[in-house]
Amino acid sequence: MGTDVKAIHQRDADLRRRAERVIPAGMYGHHSVVNMHLPPNFPQFLKEGNGAYIRDVDGNEYVDLLCSYGPIILGHRHPAVEEAARKQAALGDCLDAPSPRVVELAELFTSTVEHADWAVFAKNGTDATTGCLTIARAATGRSVILAVRGSYHGAAPWCTPWPAGVLPQDRANMRYFDYNDAESFKAAVAEAGEEFAGVIITPFKHIEGFDQELVDPEFARLLRRTCDDCRALLILDDVRCGFRMHLGGSWEPIGVRPDLSAWSKAIANGYALAAIAGSEKYREVASTVFLTGSFWFAAVSMAAAIATIGALRAEDAVARMARAGDLLKTGVVAQAGAHDLAIHYTGHPTMPYITFEADTDYERMTTFGSAALNAGTYLAPRHNWFLNAAHSDDIINRVLASTDRAFDAVRRAYGGD
Amino acid sequence: MGTDVKAIHQRDADLRRRAERVIPAGMYGHHSVVNMHLPPNFPQFLKEGNGAYIRDVDGNEYVDLLCSYGPIILGHRHPAVEEAARKQAALGDCLDAPSPRVVELAELFTSTVEHADWAVFAKNGTDATTGCLTIARAATGRSVILAVRGSYHGAAPWCTPWPAGVLPQDRANMRYFDYNDAESFKAAVAEAGEEFAGVIITPFKHIEGFDQELVDPEFARLLRRTCDDCRALLILDDVRCGFRMHLGGSWEPIGVRPDLSAWSKAIANGYALAAIAGSEKYREVASTVFLTGSFWFAAVSMAAAIATIGALRAEDAVARMARAGDLLKTGVVAQAGAHDLAIHYTGHPTMPYITFEADTDYERMTTFGSAALNAGTYLAPRHNWFLNAAHSDDIINRVLASTDRAFDAVRRAYGGD
Repeated sequence: MGTDVKAIHQRDADLRRRAERVIPAGMYGHHSVVNMHLPPNFPQFLKEGNGAYIRDVDGNEYVDLLCSYGPIILGHRHPAVEEAARKQAALGDCLDAPSPRVVELAELFTSTVEHADWAVFAKNGTDATTGCLTIARAATGRSVILAVRGSYHGAAPWCTPWPAGVLPQDRANMRYFDYNDAESFKAAVAEAGEEFAGVIITPFKHIEGFDQELVDPEFARLLRRTCDDCRALLILDDVRCGFRMHLGGSWEPIGVRPDLSAWSKAIANGYALAAIAGSEKYREVASTVFLTGSFWFAAVSMAAAIATIGALRAEDAVARMARAGDLLKTGVVAQAGAHDLAIHYTGHPTMPYITFEADTDYERMTTFGSAALNAGTYLAPRHNWFLNAAHSDDIINRVLASTDRAFDAVRRAYGGD
Repeated sequence: MGTDVKAIHQRDADLRRRAERVIPAGMYGHHSVVNMHLPPNFPQFLKEGNGAYIRDVDGNEYVDLLCSYGPIILGHRHPAVEEAARKQAALGDCLDAPSPRVVELAELFTSTVEHADWAVFAKNGTDATTGCLTIARAATGRSVILAVRGSYHGAAPWCTPWPAGVLPQDRANMRYFDYNDAESFKAAVAEAGEEFAGVIITPFKHIEGFDQELVDPEFARLLRRTCDDCRALLILDDVRCGFRMHLGGSWEPIGVRPDLSAWSKAIANGYALAAIAGSEKYREVASTVFLTGSFWFAAVSMAAAIATIGALRAEDAVARMARAGDLLKTGVVAQAGAHDLAIHYTGHPTMPYITFEADTDYERMTTFGSAALNAGTYLAPRHNWFLNAAHSDDIINRVLASTDRAFDAVRRAYGGD
């Protein structure tokens, strides 16, 4: 494969060499092909995005099933979003004071997200999750936040998955429990005792390296009830799932409403934006926390978010993503069976996660992802995928053509199960 | 004044009423006129920016002397920056992997900033300062960071100026000293002892409520020497000053180079971007810290940064801002004298801070700011101002016409000194 990769990724290879000189390890964070354990044929650099497609710097085009790790929910460069952004950019983005867009977006956000009576906007998902923790501590005068062991809530010292530079004090006021495990939650609450300020949890369990798990509604209700009993805050981290499971908040279908919710990724279809939404009860205390940043009031990303929410409604995007997700799941599961390969297909239909039962260290999944890429679909072999509203039936059928070849490659390399 | 304000700020008032319903306290952070103690005639909402001017939602135009609290360094909507951003936006912004812009920008940044051998890009100044602390701790295996008492380094729990929701553990590994005070620095180093990981400091003392103070080069050299002796890291927080004092880093004129520097605000002329720059010695350890965020690889802000640095060079912007700053200082100081008012005009010429000697709680400065606004110049009465490259002699003369009327208003309200 070496020769092929070289031929079709010449510009990518040149850029990697240049990057090695001026960026630590050649690339940082979750956009490093090394950090994300992407197969060697994955490009490190992309040139453009267009609807359901992305194109790398060497001109190779792929159906995009990663959606920039979540942000792209309507497809790349959605016309209505781009038009709204262009219109605002012609007036101004980062001004000395907010534009009217912040009011319009806060109105739209609170009328869309069911539990939300107010909203504050930021730039990173980490800004939003960290802000929620700080508000919970300010509201209760207590210190301890409960979180699910291994859940990703951002890259700040209190939550980063990498230990380098993190101190014990950064997590001294965190306690952990297991997703959907009532007993471990109750034990964490008991451990927190008088200092129980709140719990932060993702809408479903999406921890890398484990089968994903939808929330048990009874478990969600236990969290809600316990927070009410203890006057602690229930914080829903909707950064990854937000607007893919339900426009009104990801736990609306199960009828459990958080006190605070953290949003980012998809709320502006790729424009840098995050949000903290809260219920009436915590409005006043939220104003006592210094939530700010140089670009938190930038108007273009807010104009983009307004257009994104409008398009999500107009296009009935949540239902369409669910349909695309079901189509994909049905197809992939059938293909695995036809190739006599045992897989786990878990998670919400719009954010599926696939593993091979026989894999010990993703070796089959790596072969699968590599072959899928060669067949024209970009999917992360060790991360959940994302559906978006540009994934028409036709696009999903193209994906399925890729996954069929990918299963064939796995079967040829490792045999059937 | 009440009637005037009402008449010229009707749309602003309507937006404030709407904001009250959906945003805690009507607005958050440093863009809240309440939080920043701006006089009542200051608009809460702006419609647009254009070169040296901003316009509020009621159509009133002002010369902008706040520059969006720093980010606008070339003037609002600088043609070359906007063109670069538009061109990149037509390809894509937030993709599944970085665009070539990240390499080009890292090359340009490291060839511009003298101490920098590598760079990592983020969204907020707080991302950059927090990242620097984490890298320093990872590099040394020690915990304690020294910082100047009262200095602003961002809005995360370890550094936010507001105490709500902050826990003792968030700052358990911070020790403080006073700017330009060698004895207090030495005492902090002694207190940190074996745990001394690094020191974070702004290029000059710009703490709200105090006269600004340029760094004593001997003090800067003491910091550098002490860090070398202790194998701790010297971190320059260039978020606010970056590119206004010197393109190569704000301590280049005094010849003291940091190990790490934090950047944001002006590096992309208002586009949301931050940077951590570092020297060779800390390249490898930087790659062990998980520095990432959903939008940290967004290509449009990087294209804007490349164009910004290009325009700063092409327009000889640093020298021009210094000239504009000197012109402003000379004019304002002369006006104060002519009105028999004693002021302190401190800070770097491109980021001046003005107080009245007789003020006890900014009452004169508030009158000053209010009158300057009515005369057509937007300047923050309780925050340093910012010069930018769009501040031509003509613009500065317009500002001086405003400040002359503002001094007159102070003189009439409070008498001379």
